[in-house]
Amino acid sequence: MKTLRVPEATVTRLSIYSRFLERLDRNGVTTVSSGEIAEGVGVSPAQVRKDLAYFGEFGTRGVGYNVKDLLRYTLKILGLDQKWPLILVGAGNLGFALCTYKGFNDRGFSIVAVFDNDLMKIGKMIGHLEVLPMEKMPEVIEKHNVRIGIIAVPPRAAQDVAEYMVKNGLEAILNFAPITLNLPEKIEVRNVDLSVKLEILTFNLGFKAAQNL
Amino acid sequence: MKTLRVPEATVTRLSIYSRFLERLDRNGVTTVSSGEIAEGVGVSPAQVRKDLAYFGEFGTRGVGYNVKDLLRYTLKILGLDQKWPLILVGAGNLGFALCTYKGFNDRGFSIVAVFDNDLMKIGKMIGHLEVLPMEKMPEVIEKHNVRIGIIAVPPRAAQDVAEYMVKNGLEAILNFAPITLNLPEKIEVRNVDLSVKLEILTFNLGFKAAQNL
Repeated sequence: MKTLRVPEATVTRLSIYSRFLERLDRNGVTTVSSGEIAEGVGVSPAQVRKDLAYFGEFGTRGVGYNVKDLLRYTLKILGLDQKWPLILVGAGNLGFALCTYKGFNDRGFSIVAVFDNDLMKIGKMIGHLEVLPMEKMPEVIEKHNVRIGIIAVPPRAAQDVAEYMVKNGLEAILNFAPITLNLPEKIEVRNVDLSVKLEILTFNLGFKAAQNL
Repeated sequence: MKTLRVPEATVTRLSIYSRFLERLDRNGVTTVSSGEIAEGVGVSPAQVRKDLAYFGEFGTRGVGYNVKDLLRYTLKILGLDQKWPLILVGAGNLGFALCTYKGFNDRGFSIVAVFDNDLMKIGKMIGHLEVLPMEKMPEVIEKHNVRIGIIAVPPRAAQDVAEYMVKNGLEAILNFAPITLNLPEKIEVRNVDLSVKLEILTFNLGFKAAQNL
């Protein structure tokens, strides 16, 4: 379902602005200009104003934005004015890292259950979570009202896991397996490929070298 | 140094196209159209042609692209016609997951050393790598001719680690710590925040709900 009119890059930056605003708020800063936000996150002031303009009128000319208000508003736009329970499939190294990743909790995400189909992993503890067999997924989803799942299994298993998640009512999937999932249009899927950003670095290093020739 | 004229989104997609081409090549497919690439990765055919046009003329009208040639060329553009040795700092859960992440090796990246300043971690093995003390970094960088470092330490330690990497000659950093690093312009830095993509999902779920009202 491609109903989204706000560019995804804008949503991504909104997420980054809100982190910066959180930091300002923690440090007791009460007002901020678009220029200061821009400098803090490394984009142009015009970009900040354009991104925020998608969502209405903010700030007072010459005074800037009220930090607490803008923070609250950005979080609300991102859907982070509520807690999001998540389930994760794949109790390998990556799954372990994701279960203990502080960055999720900081933003209101909480992994409520971890699943695996490996009998050697089922029953083991990751932090305070016991690795559960896949068959437990329906009951966990219902109990915690889970809408989003994370896939951290090997590529060959990812499609089956995704289909099982969808069959059990999940609406959105964050996929760490380096394959393209084939799912109904209405399911929101985003892939995290950890090497894509490395390739931006190698591209840029190569580009610089070419310029110096 | 902002010398890059090719949009970063194009580089990101190029990285995704090349994965798709690898898959085609493995499956014995020899030619492919921009429409097939587009469908395979979920963008428009016009986008594929526009992205490739940054780098010259490819393909034959009515015949499409030669898979092997286009794959070789995309890898070369991305700087992946060579192996890239990497170092990683932070031997926690995330560091462990990254060291064993297959997606890196598949693309020619190889983590050659892991560092930590925690005496409890130094000397432990992650796969075939022994966790080394930070002081060993200069000699490893020189020995393996490392140019890129990965930061997987807690936020409070990330800036110091980044500065130490730069002092020892690294030119590019992939940062997993959820903070903005403050480094000289000439250093290429990209941040991976694992929750940003989750927030795109929550934004979209909220957006859909609002549309149904």
